[in-house]
Amino acid sequence: MAVFVYKFGGTSVDSVERIKAVAEKIKQARDQGDDIVAVVSAMSGETNRLTSLAKEMQQQQPIDREMDVLLSTGEQVTISLLSMALIDLGCPACSYTGGQVRILTDSMHTKARIREIDDKNIKADLGKGNVVVVAGFQGIDDKGNITTLGRGGSDTTAVALAVALKADECHIYTDVDGVYTTDPRVEPKARRLEKITFEEMLEMASLGSKVLQIRAVEFAGKYNVALRVLSSFKEGGGTLITYEESQMERALVSAIAFNRDEAKLTITGVPDLPGVASKILCPIADKNIEVDMIIQNIAADSTTDFTFTVHRNDYQKSKEVLKQVCRDLGAKQVTGDDSIVKISIVGVGMRSHAGIASNMFKVLADEGINIRMISTSEIKISVVVDEKYLELSVRALHEAFGLEKENV
Amino acid sequence: MAVFVYKFGGTSVDSVERIKAVAEKIKQARDQGDDIVAVVSAMSGETNRLTSLAKEMQQQQPIDREMDVLLSTGEQVTISLLSMALIDLGCPACSYTGGQVRILTDSMHTKARIREIDDKNIKADLGKGNVVVVAGFQGIDDKGNITTLGRGGSDTTAVALAVALKADECHIYTDVDGVYTTDPRVEPKARRLEKITFEEMLEMASLGSKVLQIRAVEFAGKYNVALRVLSSFKEGGGTLITYEESQMERALVSAIAFNRDEAKLTITGVPDLPGVASKILCPIADKNIEVDMIIQNIAADSTTDFTFTVHRNDYQKSKEVLKQVCRDLGAKQVTGDDSIVKISIVGVGMRSHAGIASNMFKVLADEGINIRMISTSEIKISVVVDEKYLELSVRALHEAFGLEKENV
Repeated sequence: MAVFVYKFGGTSVDSVERIKAVAEKIKQARDQGDDIVAVVSAMSGETNRLTSLAKEMQQQQPIDREMDVLLSTGEQVTISLLSMALIDLGCPACSYTGGQVRILTDSMHTKARIREIDDKNIKADLGKGNVVVVAGFQGIDDKGNITTLGRGGSDTTAVALAVALKADECHIYTDVDGVYTTDPRVEPKARRLEKITFEEMLEMASLGSKVLQIRAVEFAGKYNVALRVLSSFKEGGGTLITYEESQMERALVSAIAFNRDEAKLTITGVPDLPGVASKILCPIADKNIEVDMIIQNIAADSTTDFTFTVHRNDYQKSKEVLKQVCRDLGAKQVTGDDSIVKISIVGVGMRSHAGIASNMFKVLADEGINIRMISTSEIKISVVVDEKYLELSVRALHEAFGLEKENV
Repeated sequence: MAVFVYKFGGTSVDSVERIKAVAEKIKQARDQGDDIVAVVSAMSGETNRLTSLAKEMQQQQPIDREMDVLLSTGEQVTISLLSMALIDLGCPACSYTGGQVRILTDSMHTKARIREIDDKNIKADLGKGNVVVVAGFQGIDDKGNITTLGRGGSDTTAVALAVALKADECHIYTDVDGVYTTDPRVEPKARRLEKITFEEMLEMASLGSKVLQIRAVEFAGKYNVALRVLSSFKEGGGTLITYEESQMERALVSAIAFNRDEAKLTITGVPDLPGVASKILCPIADKNIEVDMIIQNIAADSTTDFTFTVHRNDYQKSKEVLKQVCRDLGAKQVTGDDSIVKISIVGVGMRSHAGIASNMFKVLADEGINIRMISTSEIKISVVVDEKYLELSVRALHEAFGLEKENV
């Protein structure tokens, strides 16, 4: 008898009908003899409703402890309704808040980290034949305060429970039916992947693919929990996220990711002295602006050009900061471009194969696409190109690396 | 420094504006140096919203444990919002769910009884200068299941906390500004009472006056917690409910209560044998019909007439049951009337004064009002009259017993 943790996000439980459909899905699995722990989010829209109530209540800064008390009611509503739906179908079930499980976290309200999960009560309930329905996103600290885990917290709850219960698989039910070789809205030939490695999934999440939260993937990878992404609304096996198997026939490139929200900034003619990079980036960080790619070239005249990318929303603010830095350092000038995109190829197969990067650059060159920046990691190559070339680049690379076919 | 428990019902917290007004009221009290524990209900309408979600979820009978998980979110939302409003006003505050306080109850979901309250955390918070905001209506059983206390549960929570904390007074803020000598909609001269005894309040509550739940009044009386009913929306001292003080100058009659929802049924010519009353009333009780007043007369011909009153909604059902009883007992016939009302005079002063009843009957007779039934207790006399005489009776009695003037 296998143990599965199923996680259903907000859109999967956003109405009475959908909660009933989720209950049917769980009942089918249980009828096959498996133990099921279901982790659920707040009904879609509920968190926004509660957040706007809280905003009306506070003129001053938000009060994190009370935000957690407020927001955690969202999942508590869902666990009770789903348990009712299950019991109504003749499937015994029992709901648990984060505190009732006991999902012990630190005391960092609104972004708490899980420290420990007590599996005693859940195991006892599974032993009695119950489906256990757990509120995602929430926990309790060692003083009994209600905490929440921040963005994507329900995925984290599901993975942490799968670890604690030594579950066979953790299923993340969402509104897409798996992980694709690239976004099907850009390349209609994009293909659902049967399998992907944790490392690839991590790179893709960090590159803007929003199927799973980075934190949950990291957690699953760390404890080697087989993670499966699949649709709440369509049948299908989804995509299994797991460790690389040596036997597995690997494609060189598994997927193409991209991010439209990029802008790049360059400061030229910076005196090439030690510590100059931190003098440029610290004032940016002080404004809470996150920097993505960073490139530095050494010029012939003992000055250097320094380029980095930021989120497009932070472009103007970054430019202002950088102009001051330019004056302070006696650099030449600040230039920038907020109509660029980042395109990345991802694949563990790259590790053992040379020539992938040059192949990528050639594909883009053949299409007349100018590469503005390059950045690489062991299993990823990212390039920055003009925004207008996004679709062309993605389709050309998808074709060139044969992603529409399985296991090349 | 005094300790007060303030309780605010659903209509007092049904919008952002009203919650802010409640926060202002609490802050004023705290600024005078008092310790305040605020008990709040769910925002008005929230319980209905959650209940109808639950109804949609369940075709079969309701699942009480999960109903409690669901409904308890209502107060949890209010405690967090009120705490935010207080902190935003610069008044330190901390919210508590029933489980966090630890309000330990039995495991009778949807109608649990409080067993024990742990005052440790609340006292520590008060000691730090915090206002403590507690979710009414909810508790936790010894296995950690969430329970709710049933109708009027928030009043009960407030009184129980006042007992546990040895509070100086428990204030019940509601949408009326106190307890009146009678309903001002019937007698505009009705006067707010400064004080009323627990016993009088209990009689009035059981007679249909809906200011306070019987259970909370009983609880307060049992533990001698001074209870004050006052308005959330208007200034004023409200009505203090307390034990009779011997020094206190007492009116003979404190108030006139009435109940419009009555119907009466009579079965005549019942053989006057032992056990006949239970043979009549058991079949009624078996149908879950509550019986209010009961009167039995012995007739000359060794048969008896038996009359009782029920809620008007149960009139037809009761009549059907009684017709069968009539056949079974070989009684004469069943008659009834569903256009009657009950009018009661209440007052601890009655105890030591004879002649109150005859005075009451004379007042009604002088107005040509026919009394259909009479029932008395130590501090109450109730009569049943035709519905059309309700207003006339109430005003005549209010005048005759001088209730528009203080302390006659």
